[in-house]
This record gives sequence, structure tokens and C-alpha cells, in this order.
Amino acid sequence: MLTAKGLATRGRIVAAAADEIRERGIGVVTLDDVGRRSKTGKSQLFHYFPDGKEQLLLAVAEREAERVIEDQEPQLTELKSWAAWDEWRDVLVAKYRRQGVNCPLGVLITEIGRHTPAAQAVTAKLLTQWQHRVQTGIEDMQASGDIRADVDPAHAAAALMAAIQGGVAILMSSGSSEHLEHALDLCLDYLRIRPS
Amino acid sequence: MLTAKGLATRGRIVAAAADEIRERGIGVVTLDDVGRRSKTGKSQLFHYFPDGKEQLLLAVAEREAERVIEDQEPQLTELKSWAAWDEWRDVLVAKYRRQGVNCPLGVLITEIGRHTPAAQAVTAKLLTQWQHRVQTGIEDMQASGDIRADVDPAHAAAALMAAIQGGVAILMSSGSSEHLEHALDLCLDYLRIRPS
Repeated sequence: MLTAKGLATRGRIVAAAADEIRERGIGVVTLDDVGRRSKTGKSQLFHYFPDGKEQLLLAVAEREAERVIEDQEPQLTELKSWAAWDEWRDVLVAKYRRQGVNCPLGVLITEIGRHTPAAQAVTAKLLTQWQHRVQTGIEDMQASGDIRADVDPAHAAAALMAAIQGGVAILMSSGSSEHLEHALDLCLDYLRIRPS
Repeated sequence: MLTAKGLATRGRIVAAAADEIRERGIGVVTLDDVGRRSKTGKSQLFHYFPDGKEQLLLAVAEREAERVIEDQEPQLTELKSWAAWDEWRDVLVAKYRRQGVNCPLGVLITEIGRHTPAAQAVTAKLLTQWQHRVQTGIEDMQASGDIRADVDPAHAAAALMAAIQGGVAILMSSGSSEHLEHALDLCLDYLRIRPS
């Protein structure tokens, strides 16, 4: 167990590593760079990350995954009206347009090894948390009568996750947010529709 | 311009390379392996691929991209009834479940370099062809009155591409086809719905 001070130091190291990697690229950042930026000595670095760079990269990946959610707040946890859903949709599109081809989490997952259990745990946790918030939004809208009762909230939330994931992947390859926008719009239209 | 015989030889080399890579992995396959399997001498290999392995890998990527479409035929070009759409949906899910975490096109694109113009041209062409076939299917269903007229065929086809791409990406990371299935089902439900 880390003390509050220990947690703060660890957080400072992770934040410094995340910033270094975002600014200079994962290929060139060393533990010395991270130590310099976080004003932490080598022995302190190894106190918090005894397994070295690999362990630090995993902590940075976990932090970047949290930021994916944070970047969508407060909208993501307040999906209680159509105006809120539309705002969330616009926040998402703007976030990924700004990000372009550089996905801070993606480079870390690639570096750690996409198929390693550690990397998969990070992406699985992010997916679960994200999807759960969307599902809660759908449930809230059903409770207020804004979404029809026959929509399965878990299935629709899973579909939205796939749509976002695919839209972002295409944006990262094509440079255009077109697919992401059409995918989000189709899902939101689906939730809005009142069948006869 | 290649003669018919030249085209056949080139095709045999590409097919041999594709099979070698699928079976043994891109990291270990050499030009000698491809020559042996296709019964082609080194001088012939370099006649068709003067720039060597890199040029051959690009040709294999183009071939694998064609196979992505072929794997969905004849369903993909015959989306003229709801039964046909459901069949296509099942063919897609079965294909990607079978494929699991091993995407033959993906490993080539990664090897060539995801952000190189050559790799992006291959994936862009695949996306365009695939999306165009889906769009034609939606237009056919609108012509027969099976899909409501206010659906934009191009936008809905783009959304389907994002949904598939994202569903497959999650399948490759999680091992489950759940997201792919829910995403396809939501899009098909959306196309089917008759608003009041």
C-alpha cells in the first residue's frame, strides 16, 4: 500500500512519462527523461516501478485509458436528454478530429504488445467502463420515456462501442471523421426512432 | 503490360506468398520460400517484382483485400431481400469468428507500415468497394420499398463500415463476436424500422 504522498509521487512520475511520450514519441523516451521531468531520482523511480520501463509504460497506458473517459466528461455520465446525447456526440467527434492519427493509448498498447494479457486488460477495462456509462444513459432515457422500451440497453451500448471504435480506426487511416459521424448518427437515430 | 501468361505467373507468385504468410507468419517467410512454393526462379521473381520483397508484400496485401470482399460473396452483391441481408450478416460473423485474432490483411498492412501511402491506398480501396456494395444493397431495397426513403444510403453504408470495422477490432482483442453482432443487428434493425 502506498501512502498519500507515495501515490502523489507515483502519479507525478506517470504524468511526466505520459507527457514525454505524447510530446516526443514512445521510441525515444528513456527513464532518465522521465526522472528529469518528474524531478525524481533513479532509486525513487525503481521504488515505484521495480520492473522498470515496461511496468511504467503499463501505468501510463492505464492513465491514458482513464483520459479517454475523462475527455468525454461531464457529457458521458449525464446522458439524460437528447441535447446531452447530441453534445456528447459532438465532443467525441471533436476529440478524435483533434487527435487525428496520433492515438496516445494506441501507441502504448502497441509498444506493450497488443496481444499481451496486460495490454488486453487495459483495453477491456476501458471498453467496459465506457460501455457501462452509455448503457446507463440509455436506461435513464428509457426511464424518462425518451427511448422506447424494446431497445436492449446493453446491446445498443455494445453496438455504439463498435461504431465508435471503427469510426476512429477509419479516421486514423483516412484522416476523415465522416465514418465516425455517420456511425454515431445512425446509432442515435436508432435510439430516437418511434416505430409505428 | 503483362501477357496473359505473365499475369498467370505473377498471380501464382502472389498466391504462393499469401499462403506462405498465412501458414508460417510474415516474420519468417523469405523470397526463397515463395520461389520454392510457386516453382519460380529468383530471376523470374525479380522480373515481376523488381523492387523485391516490399513490392511483393504490397501485391499480397492487394490480393488479401480482394479476398475480404470475395469471402462475403455471393451475399454482398445480392442484398435484395431481408433474407439476403440476414444471410450476409451471418456470413460476416462466421468469417470473423473463424479468423479470430489472425487478420491476414492486418499483418501485411502492419508490415508495410500502416501510415505509408501504399498501405493506405489498399485499405482505402477495400473500404470504398465494400461500402459501395452495401450502399447499392440499400438502394435496391429502397427501390423495392423495403427500406424507407428517408434513409441516406451513403451515410448508412458508411455507418455499417464503421460498425463492422469496430466490431472486428474488438473481436480481435477480446475474442468475442458479441460487439460485431450487436453492431450489425442495430444497423440492420435501423434499416428495417418503419417510423410512425
